[in-house]
Amino acid sequence: MRIALLQNSGRPGDVQANLALLEETAERAAAVGAGLLVCPEMFVTGYAIGDDVARLAEPADGSYAQAVAKTAARHGLAIVHGYPERDGDTVYNAAQLIGADGSALADYRKTHLFGEFEQRHFTAGEQPVVQAVIAGLRVGIMICYDVEFPENVRAHALAGTDLLLVPTAQMHPFQFVAESLVPVRAFENQMYVAYVNRAGAEGEFEFVGLSTLAGPDGIARTRGGRGAELLFADADPEFLAASRAGNPYLRDRRPGLYGSLI
Amino acid sequence: MRIALLQNSGRPGDVQANLALLEETAERAAAVGAGLLVCPEMFVTGYAIGDDVARLAEPADGSYAQAVAKTAARHGLAIVHGYPERDGDTVYNAAQLIGADGSALADYRKTHLFGEFEQRHFTAGEQPVVQAVIAGLRVGIMICYDVEFPENVRAHALAGTDLLLVPTAQMHPFQFVAESLVPVRAFENQMYVAYVNRAGAEGEFEFVGLSTLAGPDGIARTRGGRGAELLFADADPEFLAASRAGNPYLRDRRPGLYGSLI
Repeated sequence: MRIALLQNSGRPGDVQANLALLEETAERAAAVGAGLLVCPEMFVTGYAIGDDVARLAEPADGSYAQAVAKTAARHGLAIVHGYPERDGDTVYNAAQLIGADGSALADYRKTHLFGEFEQRHFTAGEQPVVQAVIAGLRVGIMICYDVEFPENVRAHALAGTDLLLVPTAQMHPFQFVAESLVPVRAFENQMYVAYVNRAGAEGEFEFVGLSTLAGPDGIARTRGGRGAELLFADADPEFLAASRAGNPYLRDRRPGLYGSLI
Repeated sequence: MRIALLQNSGRPGDVQANLALLEETAERAAAVGAGLLVCPEMFVTGYAIGDDVARLAEPADGSYAQAVAKTAARHGLAIVHGYPERDGDTVYNAAQLIGADGSALADYRKTHLFGEFEQRHFTAGEQPVVQAVIAGLRVGIMICYDVEFPENVRAHALAGTDLLLVPTAQMHPFQFVAESLVPVRAFENQMYVAYVNRAGAEGEFEFVGLSTLAGPDGIARTRGGRGAELLFADADPEFLAASRAGNPYLRDRRPGLYGSLI
């Protein structure tokens, strides 16, 4: 499956501009055969929008989901979009996967909140592994800081995730995460990991780009620079199966020795 | 503390030659102020020695330990040496830490055996976290394949390991482990990791060198080439404390979500 990685901060606070950019990007991605388009964390609304997080938060079946569903169905590709999700009085940092026919396949609420900004504006999710199947691949979702916890990605591997989608808002000086940690997660768990970042300055933050699709061999199939761009790379189920046969980490684990982790 | 990394396969099967090389290396290391010397996996006997593994295996307080203790005390530095450990009819792939006064501080038995060769010749250890304190640093020990399992290193972080010593016998084509995975382990667990490899061809294996001391920032403080060499690098407790304050991974973990790992 060909995956499109939208490394772009859009226009923070301007939902209509961001949905328009998504529509235009989906058309470009579908034209080169992508089956899935991955957006950064909080793409629909912007990330560094302060108290607008709560004002702009929408339910999982709200107007953002409806707009993205139309775009997905119009161009016939699945889309993961990041947004602030409202559930009553509670706001989550969420990412939703919408299928190529416009159906809502999965909604994930970030379980590991990063720093003071997120802890002030969001409630942490409680469901570590959220998955759906697209084109025969078992796809999982997490968000940014979540992927830095090896336990969290391991839980996906144990649940059979083939391709982990990670919308992110990764900032200076944490480039090491994009450059080194993400490929190691893909290798040690024998899966593909798509890590899609914002780019450029936004409020107090400087997002570093460097988006990637890392393979189960730890090799980045594509790598963004520091600016806005649209990247493409392929996830190959046959390569994944062969890699797993040669790297039996899940079989060689010794769960009886890991009791201190929980 | 200055750490010496002995990237060298010695002479496989020739214990006396290897102990002589260790003695000579300890003298060189002490002369430049090293407080700790780390050897590769199975340094004392050699790794690819087939059925000689069982023939050369010695108890933890046997002749190898006694010889290494004399070398440590003579030069006033701690030494970690890898060897096949006999306990009755059972043989472990072990690494022993001997203090600068020659006292036995810790003995670790590899818990994750790699591939057919090791599974044929060794029994797996059952104690995941083995530690001792040297010069105010809490030092842990694991061996080669053990470090590739994130759960295993996390258990050390949770037990307070500051400096993880990893004698290894890392072979082609797994360079990614030395180059990328080891620095990520140091970063995600906020510790120093010393990864000390064999070098060159030995039986059916081609060891890749690339030994390193990685810091809690994920940066390799030293990096070996493919051949035999003696490397030096420093572990700095103040830098470690500052790094931990800025990277609160252990505090931000959500152990209640990791139940599937055990």
